[in-house]
Amino acid sequence: MSPAIEKAFLSDNAAPVHPRVWEAMRAADEADAPYDNDALSRQLDERFTDLFGRPAWGLWTVTGTAANCLALATLVPPHGGVVCHREAHIEVDECGAPGFFTHGAKLMLAEGKGAKLTPEAVERVVAPIRDDTHQIQPHALSITQASEYGLVYTPAEIAALVDHARGRHFGIHVDGARFANAVAYLGCAPADACGEIDALSFGCIKNGGMGADALVFFSEAAADLAKYRRKRAGHLQSKGRFLAAQIIALLESGLWLANARAANAAAAEIARACGERLVHPVEANELFVLVNGSERDSLRAQGFGFYDWGADAARFVTAWNTREEDARALAAAIGGL
Amino acid sequence: MSPAIEKAFLSDNAAPVHPRVWEAMRAADEADAPYDNDALSRQLDERFTDLFGRPAWGLWTVTGTAANCLALATLVPPHGGVVCHREAHIEVDECGAPGFFTHGAKLMLAEGKGAKLTPEAVERVVAPIRDDTHQIQPHALSITQASEYGLVYTPAEIAALVDHARGRHFGIHVDGARFANAVAYLGCAPADACGEIDALSFGCIKNGGMGADALVFFSEAAADLAKYRRKRAGHLQSKGRFLAAQIIALLESGLWLANARAANAAAAEIARACGERLVHPVEANELFVLVNGSERDSLRAQGFGFYDWGADAARFVTAWNTREEDARALAAAIGGL
Amino acid sequence: MSPAIEKAFLSDNAAPVHPRVWEAMRAADEADAPYDNDALSRQLDERFTDLFGRPAWGLWTVTGTAANCLALATLVPPHGGVVCHREAHIEVDECGAPGFFTHGAKLMLAEGKGAKLTPEAVERVVAPIRDDTHQIQPHALSITQASEYGLVYTPAEIAALVDHARGRHFGIHVDGARFANAVAYLGCAPADACGEIDALSFGCIKNGGMGADALVFFSEAAADLAKYRRKRAGHLQSKGRFLAAQIIALLESGLWLANARAANAAAAEIARACGERLVHPVEANELFVLVNGSERDSLRAQGFGFYDWGADAARFVTAWNTREEDARALAAAIGGL
Amino acid sequence: MSPAIEKAFLSDNAAPVHPRVWEAMRAADEADAPYDNDALSRQLDERFTDLFGRPAWGLWTVTGTAANCLALATLVPPHGGVVCHREAHIEVDECGAPGFFTHGAKLMLAEGKGAKLTPEAVERVVAPIRDDTHQIQPHALSITQASEYGLVYTPAEIAALVDHARGRHFGIHVDGARFANAVAYLGCAPADACGEIDALSFGCIKNGGMGADALVFFSEAAADLAKYRRKRAGHLQSKGRFLAAQIIALLESGLWLANARAANAAAAEIARACGERLVHPVEANELFVLVNGSERDSLRAQGFGFYDWGADAARFVTAWNTREEDARALAAAIGGL
Repeated sequence: MSPAIEKAFLSDNAAPVHPRVWEAMRAADEADAPYDNDALSRQLDERFTDLFGRPAWGLWTVTGTAANCLALATLVPPHGGVVCHREAHIEVDECGAPGFFTHGAKLMLAEGKGAKLTPEAVERVVAPIRDDTHQIQPHALSITQASEYGLVYTPAEIAALVDHARGRHFGIHVDGARFANAVAYLGCAPADACGEIDALSFGCIKNGGMGADALVFFSEAAADLAKYRRKRAGHLQSKGRFLAAQIIALLESGLWLANARAANAAAAEIARACGERLVHPVEANELFVLVNGSERDSLRAQGFGFYDWGADAARFVTAWNTREEDARALAAAIGGL
Repeated sequence: MSPAIEKAFLSDNAAPVHPRVWEAMRAADEADAPYDNDALSRQLDERFTDLFGRPAWGLWTVTGTAANCLALATLVPPHGGVVCHREAHIEVDECGAPGFFTHGAKLMLAEGKGAKLTPEAVERVVAPIRDDTHQIQPHALSITQASEYGLVYTPAEIAALVDHARGRHFGIHVDGARFANAVAYLGCAPADACGEIDALSFGCIKNGGMGADALVFFSEAAADLAKYRRKRAGHLQSKGRFLAAQIIALLESGLWLANARAANAAAAEIARACGERLVHPVEANELFVLVNGSERDSLRAQGFGFYDWGADAARFVTAWNTREEDARALAAAIGGL
Repeated sequence: MSPAIEKAFLSDNAAPVHPRVWEAMRAADEADAPYDNDALSRQLDERFTDLFGRPAWGLWTVTGTAANCLALATLVPPHGGVVCHREAHIEVDECGAPGFFTHGAKLMLAEGKGAKLTPEAVERVVAPIRDDTHQIQPHALSITQASEYGLVYTPAEIAALVDHARGRHFGIHVDGARFANAVAYLGCAPADACGEIDALSFGCIKNGGMGADALVFFSEAAADLAKYRRKRAGHLQSKGRFLAAQIIALLESGLWLANARAANAAAAEIARACGERLVHPVEANELFVLVNGSERDSLRAQGFGFYDWGADAARFVTAWNTREEDARALAAAIGGL
Repeated sequence: MSPAIEKAFLSDNAAPVHPRVWEAMRAADEADAPYDNDALSRQLDERFTDLFGRPAWGLWTVTGTAANCLALATLVPPHGGVVCHREAHIEVDECGAPGFFTHGAKLMLAEGKGAKLTPEAVERVVAPIRDDTHQIQPHALSITQASEYGLVYTPAEIAALVDHARGRHFGIHVDGARFANAVAYLGCAPADACGEIDALSFGCIKNGGMGADALVFFSEAAADLAKYRRKRAGHLQSKGRFLAAQIIALLESGLWLANARAANAAAAEIARACGERLVHPVEANELFVLVNGSERDSLRAQGFGFYDWGADAARFVTAWNTREEDARALAAAIGGL
């Protein structure tokens, strides 16, 4: 068994960098204009305009948290609120970064299976809010595609959420830390996987990148505003060309989708062995599997690394580099429990 | 003439990455624990403890601005002030990032030649402040080593500032975006180049790194606090091992000093040709040179790239990779004006 | 029927000012030192030290929201959290003021009947929080005495909460917008009604005052910090003597308790007529009464003013000035539904 | 000599409350709707529309600092800047409140005699700012009418500043803590004393009020925004009718101007005795007078209270209630030095 298998299912966010990303970074070594004035960074708007088939503006960021929070800060005033799922990454795993970037705006928590929202779930949160100055008013919606439990919104589900949010005059953000996995699963156009939203955190780091995600806006004014806020948050790297290089390398020749398909396929392979143990359907590259303590011990004794998920389950994550034999080995091990 | 010369003197912050930094990054590719739990990130405390000869805690950051502002946020409450030079980078070139990270604390601007401060200059700012709740009270001092004009504080100057600040019960931060150049110039122990301070932004990006600076604390409590704030500011990269790798590569075998010496030497070579044209003595790797508009045109026509500095001067910056022949060529060109 | 009855049960926070408060304000008219340097403001520390039997520092504020949020800001860092009830005033009715004053700290919502918390309820919120930088760490507890539903914590309940919070190293705040009503109900020493906490919002406005609540600290350092923050929040009135006068007038001769007893008695009078209609036991001066739409119409047709509370209930609030005949009239009207 | 004289020239912000303001407050005692829903608060828009002859929206605030900072927060984003005088109250005497309310926006300090600005002075600050994300961009102008040194902008001076600011696309705020004194001095329409600005802090507290200033907007959207921020800052008093009553009492029958004229006249009386000792012309109700230490001792020995202003001067402030005999006595005392 490969020694690497110990890390293989822990998290896509610690996976190696894809060779073509490395190549692109090396090719960017030659000095160029600093910050985002280099030749590569200046391509991002066009690249994302092409990808989404409508005018788009692309900024690199060094984390998904930064992308999410810079997006939110353009959509909600400090005294407003953002509706999101109770288990959204922005609520649970960003140490209050949304509160920092938005200067104290509130996350308004909605419920939904598998960390997915519906218009009805959103409405249950916002309908009771009195329209007066004593209560925080909702200004935006943030959903995660694929969700924190690896579920994927269909284009129709997305469209319904977007329609509802527009009717409420909300700005709309999609946290796409694993957007590639969602598009790979759906097999649809990227634009249909997020809908007519305002801002998308387009994940690259979990998908073969090193330290660059993209923040895509569909409004120039919002992008311009976010550039000031990005600088003000200490996020404007001087050698930004290395970040742009990563994003472009992933976008070129569809590497982003190929990587996501590989991760999804490995997850599907394992899922087939899990049967009733699956807490959620496996649509992207995460598996939440019912395994009790001694079963987890057994898996770890066989060399597999993963995170516990509460007392009775475990989370396994595949990545662009998950080897077929490792996926099969894990499938067999789970099957054999 | 090399085509690269067009970029050669623009800014060290856009220079290529040193080959040994590249190697270290490649060597870190194998998956490891995410964030700062990997083997490399966990070495930083010890590395900086060794370097400074007293207990130190090292955090990677992706920009100098982030390092500066995370440091300040541990030293000053939102209702307080930080004394710095009127031309300090934190005041002039960070788009208000200190105000963001500190939640609105005030930069209190002191004067001094070459962007250097003295205890007297600090006192002129703080002495008139009434000790009541109507006026912002000073809580910290931030100085830049080497200064924004490439001047270096001697250990004695540093010690005097530190003594004065301690007498005022100020926290003390050193912006060391070019700390390596200062130490290379002084030839002293790193600890003597910054004194008994609380926090140091230890620059790597301008000195052969790619996208990692170090934030060094000399108090564990402050470092622990900064870790929450780093995460909350969207600065906790998931593949942090690549940042740690850069810093360690520079610290190993004294590469950081070798790089800085090379940059300083190139600057000194050029300085010798500038004579009376120098606005400031050249102690680190920046030259501020009196050249009028037509002289600048002439230099640009010869292929040299640089920034204008007001109407009558230009700024030239050397870097770890500045080639001797390029430095000599620029020296000759300036000499020939 | 008095025309004033239309306003009589709407809210104690709109009631008239007690005559002795008016007198005290008039007596303070003569010019004195501005801000909180006047003779009256300088008495507050001593007054509250006497009241609570341990060293206390008293600051006037112009709203309960300001008192609550200035208190919280001394107890929780921007990256931390405050545990409170899901229906706490700070969560529901302050338009995000806690987020503003704390620079984005999170309210962590616990459950409990009648808006009261228990150590178990607090533990259910904080126990699952991972001790790492990805999750907001809890730093403080805030409870409301009497609660938002007019329930009163007994000294034993308070002590249990305080003990638990201390074990967790939390700072503790009590929102005492109706603290007087709680003490009047309990008949205990004020100190026993709040326990060994760090900060108390001591409500006066709802209890016969005009526009002054008191923020009481049991630590000088916290009070000193809050004074800077009060000024910075635009809350340092120049004629502070008029605010201090209100607070002192209420404290003198136990007027604060007499007023609260009168309000509680009127509420009790009405409660006796409500029987099964009561949503919560009536312990202070608020009644939540099950009355359907047509019943509410009927009460309003009889001249009574009150707020709807959802579709099937109404909130009635008594105040220091509620007249016996009005309370009896309302009791009769509810009894006659 | 009156014992009150000791306080008579210290500060208008500690003066007694005008009898008609007291009457109006007493008349407002009857319970009314809470917050700003009462009959008086709902008059403010119309009152200020009448006063300024164009659509205006009026909010009460409890301090001038709150009025100033709520205004600024509607004019400048957190990453922007506000140009003001180096000695502006918002810079010098509000403990960083502008940084708090604006979430860290920067005050950009301009120079000018007597704390007055000119378009040229503003231009000197903003012209050097590079239009890139590294530097804070100016978004607003704030001037003080009358200035912190008691000087009054003429309508022509105001118009020139407003024109310049509009050309720069700045929002414009006037700190009118002593706006009444300026209008009384100019004898012009109130609208001409502030020009076509966005927001005015209309001072009442220094002019016979107790604890209510008005924040006047000339845009409904800005006023609506400020209402959320006022609540969020803990400034929405529940018995707001008492604040509205103060403002309305001052506006009625021109009491605000009568009070200001009285204060100005007393200042003018004293000014005539000061001759060469005046540091600034006396146009409103403040006098800055060159008096050395022993002269100040002599004045204090005669019973006069005032603040020192540096080593060689003193500040005397008159108010609506300054008695003619006290002004004459001070004039005589200064004349006799």
